[in-house]
Amino acid sequence: MGSTGARIAIDAMGGDYAPDEIVAGALRAREELGVEVLLVGDPQEIESKLPPKTNLRQVEIVPAEEMITMDEEPLSGIRRKPKASINVAMDLVKNQQADAVVSAGHSGAAMAAALLRLGRLRGIDRPAIGAMFPTMVAGKPVLILDVGANVDCRPKFLEQFAVMGSIYSQYVLGIPEPKVGLLNIGEEDTKGNDAAVRANQLLRENPQISFIGNAEGRDVLSGHFDVIVCDGFVGNVLLKFAEAVGEVMLQIIREELPQGLHGQIGTAILKPNLKRIKQRMDHAEHGGALLLGVDGICIISHGSSQAPSIFNAIRMAKEAVDNRVLHRIQSQYQSIQQESG
Amino acid sequence: MGSTGARIAIDAMGGDYAPDEIVAGALRAREELGVEVLLVGDPQEIESKLPPKTNLRQVEIVPAEEMITMDEEPLSGIRRKPKASINVAMDLVKNQQADAVVSAGHSGAAMAAALLRLGRLRGIDRPAIGAMFPTMVAGKPVLILDVGANVDCRPKFLEQFAVMGSIYSQYVLGIPEPKVGLLNIGEEDTKGNDAAVRANQLLRENPQISFIGNAEGRDVLSGHFDVIVCDGFVGNVLLKFAEAVGEVMLQIIREELPQGLHGQIGTAILKPNLKRIKQRMDHAEHGGALLLGVDGICIISHGSSQAPSIFNAIRMAKEAVDNRVLHRIQSQYQSIQQESG
Repeated sequence: MGSTGARIAIDAMGGDYAPDEIVAGALRAREELGVEVLLVGDPQEIESKLPPKTNLRQVEIVPAEEMITMDEEPLSGIRRKPKASINVAMDLVKNQQADAVVSAGHSGAAMAAALLRLGRLRGIDRPAIGAMFPTMVAGKPVLILDVGANVDCRPKFLEQFAVMGSIYSQYVLGIPEPKVGLLNIGEEDTKGNDAAVRANQLLRENPQISFIGNAEGRDVLSGHFDVIVCDGFVGNVLLKFAEAVGEVMLQIIREELPQGLHGQIGTAILKPNLKRIKQRMDHAEHGGALLLGVDGICIISHGSSQAPSIFNAIRMAKEAVDNRVLHRIQSQYQSIQQESG
Repeated sequence: MGSTGARIAIDAMGGDYAPDEIVAGALRAREELGVEVLLVGDPQEIESKLPPKTNLRQVEIVPAEEMITMDEEPLSGIRRKPKASINVAMDLVKNQQADAVVSAGHSGAAMAAALLRLGRLRGIDRPAIGAMFPTMVAGKPVLILDVGANVDCRPKFLEQFAVMGSIYSQYVLGIPEPKVGLLNIGEEDTKGNDAAVRANQLLRENPQISFIGNAEGRDVLSGHFDVIVCDGFVGNVLLKFAEAVGEVMLQIIREELPQGLHGQIGTAILKPNLKRIKQRMDHAEHGGALLLGVDGICIISHGSSQAPSIFNAIRMAKEAVDNRVLHRIQSQYQSIQQESG
């Protein structure tokens, strides 16, 4: 591990297409991004998936005896199986042998392992899962958090999510002054339930973020916001709905566009343009969700991830490492606390 | 009013395109659906929008001196302006001069007026707003409620929504045994916050509905559910997101499809097919949301409704009246109460 590049621990056993597609995505990332990849899992299985000419000295395999299955209760699974691949991957970060973890396995288990092995950042009450949504404006995604870590959120948790999301948006995505919104059922500051009204107040008073007001459901994809905070219940429903709706739309296009002779000719002519449309609607391009607030970079990929998604997830992890996101959250968060304390 | 058809009171002053488009939609409904329409609002304004050859004896205009504007706080507006068009329309139902109300005005005001003037159905703690979402399966929409009436919902409110939604789905949409789902962040019965777990239990134990389990965000458009219940916060976010997402997708298609010479040719060839795609993605087809649980049929249309949406909203109202939805909710609801009481 003599390279100066980011070292990414990959849960090679997690996901619907593990280990084949996980290994393939990791090898491509090593090649193209110049990162070191540590493949965590059953060594024999992983080795059998490596291309024949792979120089084994360049691929680090970290043995893990077990794995958490999708039907396990995450917390008890994580506790019962200390040698599960996701635990071993987290330990690599904890022991500073890796800078980040990427997993397409059980997302609840990944979160539980991160919490138990890495712990929370100082000043953060609850970690949040952040997901990038594409918007109407090409190349201008919006970061939504939380999308599933916390089913109930106190207003101050939402405030912390806003601070963490702003830092990520600023330093990783390069947005100078990220515009923050609070997901709510109306634009006015007094709209929503008690928690939403109080959260609006906290966000408006926080000098460290640029809060521009409530975001309604219709504003999520408008491109007017860079970061939108919400509790993990509504965020999770929205994320899964958005993922499915893209599929539904593509399905409708696939059904209706080639109808008739004109349709078939037109569709054939438009093939490259349709591919671009698919890419813009496709969530896989974004690689994974980001677990913010734990003491380590963790990217949680979709269970259905194949090599391109894993590649993108590793790129996300590398960018977060290279831009020192943890350090910045920690230091900015502490400065906020000192100012207010 | 000698006809035996449904009598629908229309808030002619409510909506972005009032009174022109409201009147136009109402007149078309009177013509094609055989309903009586009572146009509530400023008589001079309404009369000026009627086509020159209209027989005024066939169009009933009910004078209302005021209206609730979009920037008014609904409850106080409704109280301060007893002669506002939405109040007058509700009074027509209360006094049995009309069977239903359709309004594209301030939706909060419509709800407040319905609650204050008509009151709740016996046995219903909170009315809910139900909206139809198109699904992947053509011609098989799903009824989501609540989409905005109640920002916080106790589990028993969700149970009542499920009963009301099932009755509507069965008798108006003709679905023999509507499949009910609870919007949640996981399929397992134990998923979600405390309220969701308790609601799941209540729904599972209720013999009057066919509860098939939790619905995740990705299941909303699957066509597997006929009725999905949720609190008005998440439902409202989802509704507004869904309305916008169709627009975003069409925007992406409009931007990407005609790129390049091939793109321009292909797009020109595909014009009729693209129009069909737009129609399938379009929400306006559904006309309006349904306020269930008050003692009268109320359809709340989108503020941006034009004549076709108003026409569809009136059709929804007529179908609810013809199928005696209120009576069925009331009697089935009472029987549930008697059994459990």
